[in-house]
Amino acid sequence: MNLELALRMTEAAIKQAAREGATISVAVVDQGAHLVSFQRMEGAELSGPVLAPGKAYTSVVLRRATADLASLTAPGGELFGLAGDRFICFGGGIPLWADYGEGERVIGGIGVSGGTIAQDVACAEAAASVWLTR
Amino acid sequence: MNLELALRMTEAAIKQAAREGATISVAVVDQGAHLVSFQRMEGAELSGPVLAPGKAYTSVVLRRATADLASLTAPGGELFGLAGDRFICFGGGIPLWADYGEGERVIGGIGVSGGTIAQDVACAEAAASVWLTR
Amino acid sequence: MNLELALRMTEAAIKQAAREGATISVAVVDQGAHLVSFQRMEGAELSGPVLAPGKAYTSVVLRRATADLASLTAPGGELFGLAGDRFICFGGGIPLWADYGEGERVIGGIGVSGGTIAQDVACAEAAASVWLTR
Amino acid sequence: MNLELALRMTEAAIKQAAREGATISVAVVDQGAHLVSFQRMEGAELSGPVLAPGKAYTSVVLRRATADLASLTAPGGELFGLAGDRFICFGGGIPLWADYGEGERVIGGIGVSGGTIAQDVACAEAAASVWLTR
Repeated sequence: MNLELALRMTEAAIKQAAREGATISVAVVDQGAHLVSFQRMEGAELSGPVLAPGKAYTSVVLRRATADLASLTAPGGELFGLAGDRFICFGGGIPLWADYGEGERVIGGIGVSGGTIAQDVACAEAAASVWLTR
Repeated sequence: MNLELALRMTEAAIKQAAREGATISVAVVDQGAHLVSFQRMEGAELSGPVLAPGKAYTSVVLRRATADLASLTAPGGELFGLAGDRFICFGGGIPLWADYGEGERVIGGIGVSGGTIAQDVACAEAAASVWLTR
Repeated sequence: MNLELALRMTEAAIKQAAREGATISVAVVDQGAHLVSFQRMEGAELSGPVLAPGKAYTSVVLRRATADLASLTAPGGELFGLAGDRFICFGGGIPLWADYGEGERVIGGIGVSGGTIAQDVACAEAAASVWLTR
Repeated sequence: MNLELALRMTEAAIKQAAREGATISVAVVDQGAHLVSFQRMEGAELSGPVLAPGKAYTSVVLRRATADLASLTAPGGELFGLAGDRFICFGGGIPLWADYGEGERVIGGIGVSGGTIAQDVACAEAAASVWLTR
């Protein structure tokens, strides 16, 4: 992960938010889950600086899209009880995988917050598609 | 609990992980729930340094295998609401009991994270069996 | 404060860092001290995601350049004892004041970390000058 | 950084502690400052699980031996006020640098706590020498 790529991913997420009519925060973290970039759109919720980096962190350290964690952390799910302001376990966080040639590793993550969960996921996927076609 | 025993338990957990095809983190804590040893296998999730010690801590301070907490922390359960990143209430944490002759006391705990819950539990049990046959 | 302005200030800080030969992280916060944007340059220290937002936060909530806090927080100073990883009390944080016409209010802050203190301050001032000439 | 190397470094630190007559905790973290291994010797202080990983974290994110931070964080120093339970700014933490051929990067860190500062530093250096001659 590097800043130039993070900014291009962020731009893609914000363009998608405009299409969705949502105002969002976007975080990109590196392979160690440390923040590389963050942007909060005018008018986006103040929870963004907590939730967007939290989703990005969670997607990297658990190597899973946070949308997939929702059912796992629901009552009866394998990870029920995983919660807090560190692990954010609902949609909007996506891990970014290295090419198989480099080994199967997560090399960063994206987190989006501010819209509905469906909107956050769509914006995160727009960012991730920049990664996939880099 | 002492370091030499903690390392033998950790070794047993990691051997079990190899059999399971899992990559895990293993934490061992003492009777005060303070960390004695921790090991993260190559390629194991970055959540391990949070979740494995968390499961070990939880098993000691609640004197229960964390796998048994799922029903207690479910809606309607006695401990409903216990959640977060400090109390980790899903399988992989096991308290270690002193021999009855010494009084019924928890003298340490083990926590495993990184595989499926079933794998984590199997690895933690492999470690606990070292304790039982010490 | 808004995202567009925050990004222009960030760009100015990073250009200054290039002139200084420094690699930095830059945070911009709003009047409530909540993060608006963050960028970490390739190769900048991992402490940046903690220290740059921390300096920006501190400059807003105390309405002072963090460089001016050193004497206040020294033994015998009015704020002696203020320390930790929330209030960052060394140079690199600058509060942004609204025009007097709007009333004397802090409407945001900038925080820079990663270079020497002198470099961090120079980069933060470059960002602040964008604000002053907006 | 990997577990096998971390354990060899830890062993070297503990051997040095035996020579020093100290009882210590030893932490090794990876390039993202996440824990790879931790060991607390029988009888070592309960602060070890906080301070040893804290020193290792600090040495990685600030890319400096924590012994060098003592004067910087003293009254009048550039980083005065940096404190807390996240940044541990006294001796015992050492960053591990990659070979220049790989680029000038910190790829992990070691943290030792439990003895005098001089003993902690000696033990951390014993561990670091394993890295240098790997």
